[in-house]
Formats: sequence, C-alpha cells, structure tokens
Amino acid sequence: MSAGSLTRGLAERIVRSEPLKDAGVAEAVRAAVLDWIASALAAASDTGAGMLLRALGIGSEGRNTGVSSVLGFRCRASAPDAALINGYLSHALDYDDVHESIRGHPSAVLMSALLAEAEERGSSGAELMAAYAVGAETMCRVGLALGNRHYEAGWHSTATLGTLGAAAACARLANLDVDATIRALGLAGTQSGGLRVHFGSPVKPLHAGIAARAGLFAARLAATGFSGAAEPLDGPIGFLSLFGGEGARPERIAEAWGQPWQIVEPGLWFKPYPCCSAAHHAADAALAIRSAREFAAEDVVRAEVVYPPGGDAALVVREPKTGAEGRFSAEYVVAAALSDGELGIGTFSERPIRADLAALAAKVSRRYDADLAPAPNAMPKGRFTVLRVELADGTTLTERVDCPRGSPGRPLSKEERAAKFADAARRMPDAWRRLPDKISRLERIENLSNFIPDI
Amino acid sequence: MSAGSLTRGLAERIVRSEPLKDAGVAEAVRAAVLDWIASALAAASDTGAGMLLRALGIGSEGRNTGVSSVLGFRCRASAPDAALINGYLSHALDYDDVHESIRGHPSAVLMSALLAEAEERGSSGAELMAAYAVGAETMCRVGLALGNRHYEAGWHSTATLGTLGAAAACARLANLDVDATIRALGLAGTQSGGLRVHFGSPVKPLHAGIAARAGLFAARLAATGFSGAAEPLDGPIGFLSLFGGEGARPERIAEAWGQPWQIVEPGLWFKPYPCCSAAHHAADAALAIRSAREFAAEDVVRAEVVYPPGGDAALVVREPKTGAEGRFSAEYVVAAALSDGELGIGTFSERPIRADLAALAAKVSRRYDADLAPAPNAMPKGRFTVLRVELADGTTLTERVDCPRGSPGRPLSKEERAAKFADAARRMPDAWRRLPDKISRLERIENLSNFIPDI
Repeated sequence: MSAGSLTRGLAERIVRSEPLKDAGVAEAVRAAVLDWIASALAAASDTGAGMLLRALGIGSEGRNTGVSSVLGFRCRASAPDAALINGYLSHALDYDDVHESIRGHPSAVLMSALLAEAEERGSSGAELMAAYAVGAETMCRVGLALGNRHYEAGWHSTATLGTLGAAAACARLANLDVDATIRALGLAGTQSGGLRVHFGSPVKPLHAGIAARAGLFAARLAATGFSGAAEPLDGPIGFLSLFGGEGARPERIAEAWGQPWQIVEPGLWFKPYPCCSAAHHAADAALAIRSAREFAAEDVVRAEVVYPPGGDAALVVREPKTGAEGRFSAEYVVAAALSDGELGIGTFSERPIRADLAALAAKVSRRYDADLAPAPNAMPKGRFTVLRVELADGTTLTERVDCPRGSPGRPLSKEERAAKFADAARRMPDAWRRLPDKISRLERIENLSNFIPDI
Repeated sequence: MSAGSLTRGLAERIVRSEPLKDAGVAEAVRAAVLDWIASALAAASDTGAGMLLRALGIGSEGRNTGVSSVLGFRCRASAPDAALINGYLSHALDYDDVHESIRGHPSAVLMSALLAEAEERGSSGAELMAAYAVGAETMCRVGLALGNRHYEAGWHSTATLGTLGAAAACARLANLDVDATIRALGLAGTQSGGLRVHFGSPVKPLHAGIAARAGLFAARLAATGFSGAAEPLDGPIGFLSLFGGEGARPERIAEAWGQPWQIVEPGLWFKPYPCCSAAHHAADAALAIRSAREFAAEDVVRAEVVYPPGGDAALVVREPKTGAEGRFSAEYVVAAALSDGELGIGTFSERPIRADLAALAAKVSRRYDADLAPAPNAMPKGRFTVLRVELADGTTLTERVDCPRGSPGRPLSKEERAAKFADAARRMPDAWRRLPDKISRLERIENLSNFIPDI
C-alpha cells in the first residue's frame, strides 16, 4: 500500500519534477520574489511587527541572532525566526500575492521559509526557484484536493496549506530524498493550523509566518531522520481526511501535477491595492464609477454591493474602526474608492478611519444573487461583484467586475509591478534599488547568502 | 456579547481563581512535577531527542543558547526551545501522567512550558503551581466541552488541548490580565494541531513539545499587546466549533471550574509502565495471571484481549517491529508481561523485539464486547479489559481489569512514585537525588532559576 500512497506520490513529484524546464515558471517566480519583497517592505512600520520582534527577543537594531534577513529591519535572525517574521510582514497589509486554487496566499509562506533557509544554506537562485515552484504546486494541489469545505469550515488555507507547501519547498531546497520528503510532509501536516476567526486582526498575517516556520522546521527535522507515520496524508485519520471533511477528493492531490504548473496557469495574482482580494472587484468597480463621472461623496444616497452567495466570506468586517480593519470590509473599500479615487497604503493604516469615510461606508450594503451567472474568465472562478451607486439626483451608476485588476485574467503590467516595488522600497538604501535587476538574473545567482542588501 | 463570551469567561477563571487554597491541588502538582521529571529523564538516551537537538541547532554538550534546562542533557536553551525539547522528552516513552478528561497527557505539555518560562523569569514555586493547576483545568474543561468526537476524528488531544492549556498556564505565570489572557487563548487556539495518525512514532511525543512551545509563544506574544479575534473560542468558526464538530458542548468550558479541581478529582494518573495508558489494563491483567500460576511462554496456546468497542483506539500497532512500537500494541504488552513478568524501560526500547516475544504476541487477538458493563470505578470511564489465556493443558486463566494500577482509583503509593524517580535519575549527579526533597517544598521556593541541578 505504501508504494502507492498519496503521500508517496506527492513526495515523488516534489523530489523529481523539473519545473524550470517550463520558461513560464521562471518568469512567474521572479515576479513573485519582487512582489513578495515589496509587500513586506510596505509593512515595515506595522505595529504588530515590533511586538513580534519583542516576543521573539529580537531587537530591531544591531543585535543579530542569525544570518537570515528580516525584510525592512536592520537585524538578521535565525532562519526559523526570519521565516516567522517575514511571513508576518509580507502578509501584514494583505498586499501579497494570491492564488485561486489555494484561496489564499502562496509567497508570504513559501518565500519567507525559502529565502531564510537559502540565505543560511547559501543555496543558488535556481534551487530557490525550483523549490518555490514545487512548494506552490503542493499548496495548490492539496487545496484542490481538500475542496471548498475546508475553508468554509473555518480554516485559514494560507496557513494550513502553507505549512505543507513550505515543508515541500524546504525539502526540495535541501535535496531531501523521497522518504525524507514524506517525513517532512508528515511533520508539516501535523503542525497545520490557523483559524479564519482571526481575519481582520494581525493574527491573520501571523499565520503565514507560523506556517513558514513550521514548514522549515519540518524539513530540517525530517533531514535528521526523525520519522512519523508512513503515509501521513492518507487514510481515514490522515491529513487529507481530517482537514478536508466531506467533499474532499484526496486523489486530486497528484492530478495534473505541473501540467500546467499552477503558478503559470491559472497563475499568480499580484495586488494593486493593499486589501483583501475578495474586495478587489468592488474596489475596481468603485474606482471605475468614480473616474467615469464627477460627484461628491455627499451626493451618494446609497450603494449596494452584490456578490454570489459566499463570495464575500473573507470580508468579515462591516464597521471597521481602523483602516487596517477596513482591509476586510467591502463597505470601507467602496467608500474610500468612491471618495478618494485611490486605495493606497495610507487608506488602510492602523489609525481610526476618517469620519467622512465612516459616514459613506454606512450607506453601503451587501446583497447576494445566486441567479447572476459568473463570467467564464471570473477570478476566482464563480465570483463577481456588481456595484450600484445611487446619487441624490436620481442617477444610478452600475459597474460589474468579474476579473479584477492584478488577477491572472487582467494582470498588472511589468511597469506597474516595478512601481509597486519602487514605492515600497523608497526609504531603503540605494542597494535595494538594484534588487529588481538582481531578481531578473535570479537563475544565474550561485549563492543567495548576500542576496538581500543590508540596511 | 463579548462580556458574556465563553472565551472571556474562561480567561476570567484563569486569571482570578486561587487553586492553591485547595490543599489537594498542591499535593497533586508536587506529584506531577516529580513524575514529569522522572518521565523525561528516562528518555534521555532516546534517538529522537538527539535528532531534535540537531534540528534546533542545540548541542548536547557545552553550548548553551539560553538559561532554561533541557532535562537529562548538559545544555541549557532558550525557553521556547527548552519547552519543545522537554515536551518531547517527557512524553517520549509514554511514561508521563494522563488525565481522563483530556484523553491525554497534561504535564508533558504544561510542565515543559512552565518550567522553561519559570526558569527564565525567576518565578516562584507557588506561581508555577497555581499556573499548572489552571493550565490543567483549562485542558480538562476544554476537553470535556469538545467531547469524544474530537479525538475520534483524528486529533491528538494532548496537543490540541495542550496548546490552549500551556497558553493559559504561561499567561497565569506572567500575571497577564483578562484581556491579555483572551489574546493568549486566541493565539494558542490558532496554533493548535497534531494528528493521531502519527501514534506509534516519535511524532506523537513531539506534539507535546510543539504544544508547549506554541502555548508559551502565545502568552509571550499576548503580553506585547498583539491581538486577534475578540472571542476566538466562540462562534460558528471559532476554536470550539471547529475542533469539536458535532457533539461538542462549548458551554461546558466553564462548567464546574475548580469544583473540584480536575487534577484532584478525578485526578492525575501516574504510570507504572512506560507504555500507552490504554494498554495498562491488559498489562495488569497479564502480570496478575503470570504471578498467579507458573507456566512457560510456550505453554500459551492463545490469548484474547476483550475491550469495549473503541477502547483500544490508541493501540494502533498490531505487529510491532521494535519495543518502542510495542508501546501501542496490546499484543506486545500482553506477551512481554506474560513472558517476563515485568514491563520496564528495556521492554520498550528502540531495538527490534525479541523473537520469542514476537511469537507469543502473534497468539494474542483482540475482541470487542459491547454487552459487558464497565465498573463504576472504571478508569477511564466506560473502559475495561478482560484477558483470557488458554494454556496447552486446557486451562483457561481469566483476569479482568477496570481500574489499572497508577490510575486515580488505584494510585501508586508515595514509595512507588519515589522509586520511579530514583530509577530514572540513577545516572544523574548527586544534586538530582535531593530534587524530590526540593519538590516537597516547592510552594516555599522563591525563585526557580536554579531549581533544576546542573549535570
């Protein structure tokens, strides 16, 4: 039985596949690295980051406890600590990349684990890129196998899938064999956790860090020979059954692996706005309405946001008190976009929201429509948002978005992605401005130990 | 709603209750400390421990990375690392204490987190004792609230409940207020995990260490102000619903808190044999049969072990290859007890099992009987084991055990507990022999920084 177990099949793919033979993979990984660093740098002044460093006993100045970079901070830390902190930082603003099959965020977990480990090991750029691809493929394939019920039950899939993905990625980076990779997957699955009840709080991004550290630890411990169940993902009390519940299709874990690679097709989603991806449709719709016609915020009588049932599950906040809480509020995102015509890092700061935006957000309501057909290019599949804005003069402005900006069907241009990085890195030393160029040559970098510049 | 949430009610009890006013609590905690150290010391030559130290980058000789003790090893480590390693060590032989309401092991998790933190903080003995009592009460009350389905679904309750319990204990040790304790519980619940699929492997005891470290980290991070959901245990996607599923009774979380304290009544179970508690009934029965009448192992034609349905769920191994795997095999435990008349640390070593024991174990079968009534004093409730041994001369010897040695209904004597410690500590320096005396004065020790002697 063990020879044919789902766990073994997955481990074999992690060890043996050659993702860099597909040119699209390399391009996607380079884009992911750039966007991941930008997302983390943008969060360097986040309050939670300071708390996290304090709880770990890591100073933001001077005192190094390891050789791995903490993005945006002057200190270096051990690889496990760096994975934890960078995971938090890169997901703190919800500005980091998204993948439909994960219903969550791949790079916050995978890159945080991989870069920390690669800096300590002195891995090559090509090794990191291949490891990222198999880690992301693992997250996606396990996500597809678990099905929707996993997320709906209350699990934060970025964290649960991320732990397995980070273990797969770190196992690959360390050149573990199939048996050791099985051990790593088992050690990862048994550390999987993270509850959606925390959405809208700093615990959400912390999950990405915890998953990154757990996956890294799983691979390290597996490398020593430490072993668990022979088939930890299989069977009635294995990972896939326990986390999938009814509706899980465990056999999908290996279906179509790398054909195509999930980071190429459907592909990664890089965000233009630092807020929840489920609010991006409404954001685009509100910005389109705002740019199509001049009106003042006071002219809005009411606005209605229409979703397919469950399409707003991640938008758990209705009356945000701070901009940060507003990341998960359709009401706030629509209000800010209609009023200001832009959604920037300042829109979602930790400060209390402006009174005028609170007043406008109070006029926004949500509705669900099971009869509207989603577009074939909808991203994620089956989703859409219709925004209707009623003005005092009786006009109703309507905009429908199925495929938001930044998502695979409507990707950001190379220039837009470069601008996102440049904006996030604007306070960094000069060496950071050369980082995009280094990333473009990532496959040819032999040793990543000095990849991230000092601050 | 928040004022009356289950989470807040639990946090208030953790912060405000005064367990040491009950004299039985202090006695139970002292016994738990002694037994916990004995269980960890007995595992110091365990192979997995060395692997774990290697994966954490901690040498077994000389190099200290912190001030917290690693039981049985010469090094000192940071509190989080010490919690992880001691959690593993103290549960590695499955020799550590058990509690019926947890369906698992309290001290491996709680003491590992608490001692590590207390050594670093310089907490007093009384602070540690009160913190242990509220941590154990948290594990038990949450266990009762989640119900049987939690364990049956595949969760390792030592780990899932332990994470919350360790957070509660460390929050109490650090004198966190109610709001900070809520934060700690939320940070703990979202790190909860650990799958029963790993039973019979070193990942099982690792779960205790992971839970200890996670709970300690939760309390430390909560102390900085890092915050999550306001009511993380409550609601349809909160901890209790997600981990309990159908059959959970979340409201039981606060029922009868400290009345009586769960470590007093039903009380802790200290093990005489280093194997799974679910095998202790059969162990006692086999040892009784063996001492009642002389016979040779070859005289056994067959043996049958009868359980109530599900009573052997934890005994996942039928044909162990090593003594360590035999910890979770009714067949092996019965064979070793019938053949050797004792079950010691050597019985469950990591070496391949003896051929004669394998031959005898092959004659042992399991059966389930739903019609036999469990005794009122059964421990755990509803459990029993009947052992029937058929000899070549036609005799059938039968022994039934409802309440095994070491369990609350038939506790080890003070002398037996002292002997368990003395045996485990026999290779330790002299100062370790004075530890039982120090433990008997635990409430009066003002600073635990030097509590554990050097090696």
